[in-house]
Amino acid sequence: MTERPDRGLAFMLQYENIAWFEDGAVRILDRRCYPREVSFVTCTHYGEVAQAVTDMVTQSAGPYPAAAMGMALAAYECRDRSEAEQRAFLLAAKDCLSHARPTTAKRMERVCETMLEAAEDAWKRGEPVHEAIKRRAIEANNSRYERIGKIATYLVEKFPNNGTILTQCFAETIVGMMLKEARAKGKTLRIFCPETRPYFQGARLTATVCYEMGFDVTVITDNMPAFVMQREHVDVFTSAADAICMDGSVINKVGTFQIAIAAKHLGVPYYVTGAPDTVHPSAKDVTIEMRDPNFVLQAMGVKTARDGVKGYYPAFDVTPPELVTGVVTDRGVFSPFRLSEYGTRDAYEVVV
Amino acid sequence: MTERPDRGLAFMLQYENIAWFEDGAVRILDRRCYPREVSFVTCTHYGEVAQAVTDMVTQSAGPYPAAAMGMALAAYECRDRSEAEQRAFLLAAKDCLSHARPTTAKRMERVCETMLEAAEDAWKRGEPVHEAIKRRAIEANNSRYERIGKIATYLVEKFPNNGTILTQCFAETIVGMMLKEARAKGKTLRIFCPETRPYFQGARLTATVCYEMGFDVTVITDNMPAFVMQREHVDVFTSAADAICMDGSVINKVGTFQIAIAAKHLGVPYYVTGAPDTVHPSAKDVTIEMRDPNFVLQAMGVKTARDGVKGYYPAFDVTPPELVTGVVTDRGVFSPFRLSEYGTRDAYEVVV
Repeated sequence: MTERPDRGLAFMLQYENIAWFEDGAVRILDRRCYPREVSFVTCTHYGEVAQAVTDMVTQSAGPYPAAAMGMALAAYECRDRSEAEQRAFLLAAKDCLSHARPTTAKRMERVCETMLEAAEDAWKRGEPVHEAIKRRAIEANNSRYERIGKIATYLVEKFPNNGTILTQCFAETIVGMMLKEARAKGKTLRIFCPETRPYFQGARLTATVCYEMGFDVTVITDNMPAFVMQREHVDVFTSAADAICMDGSVINKVGTFQIAIAAKHLGVPYYVTGAPDTVHPSAKDVTIEMRDPNFVLQAMGVKTARDGVKGYYPAFDVTPPELVTGVVTDRGVFSPFRLSEYGTRDAYEVVV
Repeated sequence: MTERPDRGLAFMLQYENIAWFEDGAVRILDRRCYPREVSFVTCTHYGEVAQAVTDMVTQSAGPYPAAAMGMALAAYECRDRSEAEQRAFLLAAKDCLSHARPTTAKRMERVCETMLEAAEDAWKRGEPVHEAIKRRAIEANNSRYERIGKIATYLVEKFPNNGTILTQCFAETIVGMMLKEARAKGKTLRIFCPETRPYFQGARLTATVCYEMGFDVTVITDNMPAFVMQREHVDVFTSAADAICMDGSVINKVGTFQIAIAAKHLGVPYYVTGAPDTVHPSAKDVTIEMRDPNFVLQAMGVKTARDGVKGYYPAFDVTPPELVTGVVTDRGVFSPFRLSEYGTRDAYEVVV
């Protein structure tokens, strides 16, 4: 473990870099080109925030703060109207932002509803609604960071010292938190990151955070996880989730399912981080988003297949509970078959 | 199934396009840029043929005819020397060509030895050695096509009509032969091709052959096979092999192992095409080639990860016999556990 400044962690933990409402606009870090380029998409209408999420400007857990800040922007847009008109405008914004991507629609809706509660409080108190929403968005995010810090503690307990960890896609804040915790506990880790086609989140985002936090990080292509688990003695496969259903099914970036199958076959434990969400009783209640098929026919902007060949692009897949060793939450590690023991969550805890 | 000319098949079956010795040079189709560009690498010394194989100018079964034609070139290079000197020169060429890539060294050596036999015959008969070797290379390849035609017959019997087939990497001649046989039997097929990072053989080569032969072909990224097997009801997963060991282990493009694990988990049969080879008693006797790790840190020439991040690039993996449903050979379909029943092969049958 070399000594490098915590650029990676700092970057991931500054929500100003994920999505930030200021001066009548929401600014979102464009992860599509990060780290090659650090640029931001600026939205002056909430519809543009929804479009940015649809277009993958931000992904993983990024859409939730983006939606929250998008609600602040919506409140700002309608600030001169009557309370009834504002309420109608914010409800329209909630609908629009929630449905930016189908798989996460229910959780996005909860984020927006929490922001609507902040709006109701603001109307009662007679304060500017957009400021109240922004404050709630920041509070929600800070509380989220705190919960993820707890998840990191439980997760790192599962890592041996000098352990080898396999990731999948970009697990957002938990990547930085996990590495910070590993360092605090004096654990040296070697990390393998599948590149995560077609967007390369693993190669671009996860590997960057790991490297900038001073860890030994190796990128592999998406056809190598089974080989790496076998030959490089991976101790733990871990991923975050776009949704953890109450029945223990994990909805996450496409590829998680086949790595989990291989991990089970090879005796490697799979720990998923996050918290079960009652908005998703089972995997059947989740729509798997099918994105533009042409996107898989290129890589980093260069066409790969000849004209006439079709593409196919499911954004997520479903890993059934029998392939999950444990669900690492802010309240400890749970069996995927006993997630009701996690208990209910405060409406405030919109996203872990 | 639409009516398109057999460009794909024609292309794959013209060994002049794989490797061809003429006018004192071996010309090899450059698969690294095919089909975007149809260009050839010209070698005037056998060492350049070996280098071309090392550099992936041709891969899959392409290196075998390249090595055979490389031996013809070597004979041409030393044509004015004494027989003893020619023999020494050809032995050096055999060593060089055989070791162009580690995983296939033993089979490459057999190809070169067969060409040396042709040289011995030529010396006895007093005919030009390079011509005798070239003739033997062509005969070996024609005989190979004939055997692959038989494999295609047995393989297509495993496909239902209106079946969905999942491939892996580029299975060389068997792709075209399989589709030709499917058409002859009136079977409509839908084919999913994983793109096969980091070289994109699936997206570039397999998908092109399927499309040009008029089949419904869809490219997916390498993290999607399990999802596709589950959601699109794949009937058969099939691949060729860089080596089928006598113990039923399959050495093939990295990724085959994890698709085979997922196929087993999901109840999809996996048929590997080729023939067992006594030069490989077991997987332990095969060296898995580790290629330049930096190659996985780019895609189609564009860098994906930031500086400092490491890569890792095993070219192949090992699929154990318990994940293989059947080995489809020119002599019928065998259990991977009973490959001795295949019998011995004529030294002439250097590569299936």
